Amino acid sequence: MDEFELIRRLTRHLPSRPEVVVGPGDDCAVLRLSEPGQDLLFKTDAVVEGVHFRRSDRAEQVGHKALARVLSDVAAMAGQPLAALVTLGLPEDFDPTYVDGLYAGLNALAQRFNVAVVGGETTRVPGRIILSISLLGTVARDRAVRRVGSKPGDALFVTGELGGSLEGHHLEFEPRLHEARWLADHFQIHAMIDLSDGLAGDLRHLLAPDGLGAELLASAIPISVPARRRAQASTAARPALVAALADGEDFELLFTVASNQAVPLLDAWKKQFHPLRLTCIGKITSEPGVSLRDKTGVRPLHAHGYSHFAEPERN
Amino acid sequence: MDEFELIRRLTRHLPSRPEVVVGPGDDCAVLRLSEPGQDLLFKTDAVVEGVHFRRSDRAEQVGHKALARVLSDVAAMAGQPLAALVTLGLPEDFDPTYVDGLYAGLNALAQRFNVAVVGGETTRVPGRIILSISLLGTVARDRAVRRVGSKPGDALFVTGELGGSLEGHHLEFEPRLHEARWLADHFQIHAMIDLSDGLAGDLRHLLAPDGLGAELLASAIPISVPARRRAQASTAARPALVAALADGEDFELLFTVASNQAVPLLDAWKKQFHPLRLTCIGKITSEPGVSLRDKTGVRPLHAHGYSHFAEPERN
Repeated sequence: MDEFELIRRLTRHLPSRPEVVVGPGDDCAVLRLSEPGQDLLFKTDAVVEGVHFRRSDRAEQVGHKALARVLSDVAAMAGQPLAALVTLGLPEDFDPTYVDGLYAGLNALAQRFNVAVVGGETTRVPGRIILSISLLGTVARDRAVRRVGSKPGDALFVTGELGGSLEGHHLEFEPRLHEARWLADHFQIHAMIDLSDGLAGDLRHLLAPDGLGAELLASAIPISVPARRRAQASTAARPALVAALADGEDFELLFTVASNQAVPLLDAWKKQFHPLRLTCIGKITSEPGVSLRDKTGVRPLHAHGYSHFAEPERN
Repeated sequence: MDEFELIRRLTRHLPSRPEVVVGPGDDCAVLRLSEPGQDLLFKTDAVVEGVHFRRSDRAEQVGHKALARVLSDVAAMAGQPLAALVTLGLPEDFDPTYVDGLYAGLNALAQRFNVAVVGGETTRVPGRIILSISLLGTVARDRAVRRVGSKPGDALFVTGELGGSLEGHHLEFEPRLHEARWLADHFQIHAMIDLSDGLAGDLRHLLAPDGLGAELLASAIPISVPARRRAQASTAARPALVAALADGEDFELLFTVASNQAVPLLDAWKKQFHPLRLTCIGKITSEPGVSLRDKTGVRPLHAHGYSHFAEPERN
């Protein structure tokens, strides 16, 4: 059995669903939506060895991460995933066991979120492994939650805890698909994005389409245990608050709702998703720009997460 | 303007269509089908520098090729393309002008075949350029033409001329979208595939699902001018017939119809698509395996295009 033979074997038993009319092995996959009047969600994302993961990372986790990233994008639109295509770039000297692990991690997550894997392509890429996932999802007509739509005075919420993702979270995070759909089903979510490049940066993508700004409350930012631990371990490390504001790959949901919905939302969330945190971290302002408020006052926050007074505040 | 700024500029004006509800710039693209009851086609394909193209190839042609490859897959199902996502992997020292050219070639082809480009992702890939395209297409319900479905006795047809694609055709070929849809609208096409890995190899993908075989007529194989020219230029080159049987990247359509449809099909084709050739190159057999018939007899043909008697037949 040569190595491409192994890949063929690995891709023979892939998660499916009733919507799959033609799966792997033809020129294209063919899908038939089970409900009429749905909008389609379409997204692609790649992880590259040496950029998004290391060869020393567990293959199952790398496969998990590659699919989880695009699932997180579907979550951010309050959609549901349907089918994925896998593009795998491999160097000539690749380890078949590693490829086995990539598919194991990917398939396990696909099965858990009912994603059909409807095809795969393997191509030679000298020197490094690349795993690119294309995802097709659905959402009820006109119900996709966009980045645009926030209003001045809206409350700004974030799920989970932020910062320090590269300590391990980035390889094992759960895409917030169930949470996002529950949010969109029970509350009028004005706008939503998933955090991939860090709160301080991604928040701007949520504000820019509407020309709005935001004021964050420093004491409210939910800081992850790894971010706190790293800050405490070394005075050379960035302060935990800065990590929570600036670190990438959190893959939590950031969204806005009318301020009078904030308390009912927090109550309902707690009943539904405890112990997963949901935190109101600030409010939307009509004035563009992002600022951070703490006991010393309000100062502008830069996209990389640093602000004048965040610097000395080490903990 | 930094280089990623340039890419943002390049991806700002992309081909669209009325089905695009949300284009580039949100977490996912959102699409709404204009007709109910259509099946979806889903495909992804990548071109890698040093494998599928060289840095010295014109960027416009590389962009064209990347999209044309997936369009050819949609053609092979007799479908129509709807929307594409572009994943671009770039080394740190990439040339913005080259990226400009990639998008120019890709967008020009997209516009010509009414494909919306609904998003792009740019990622860092040390050392080489990678261009991966995800395509979403449609086809009338149950009308996708598959690889499975041939019957013993069927006539086997191929469009265009084969071999020598690497002399230039692979960078500028036309996906046979119009031709495939016309074929499926006017004749009962039993099975179809597009030729990417060479006739002798891809033919097996058309036969294997049904456990069938084929007999090719050597004198009927349409040999391209570049394949003939290369064979004539050097006695060390592979014979032109072998090139036509084995060279990859032809991106022509290979399909089967009932034998009594062969003559009406050829007549109708000539009126519709002249001067593009359509050739009956053999027939489907109930006996598995592929054989090649010429004046000296019938011999088995291997997947790489060589057969016992093809070797000495140089021209």
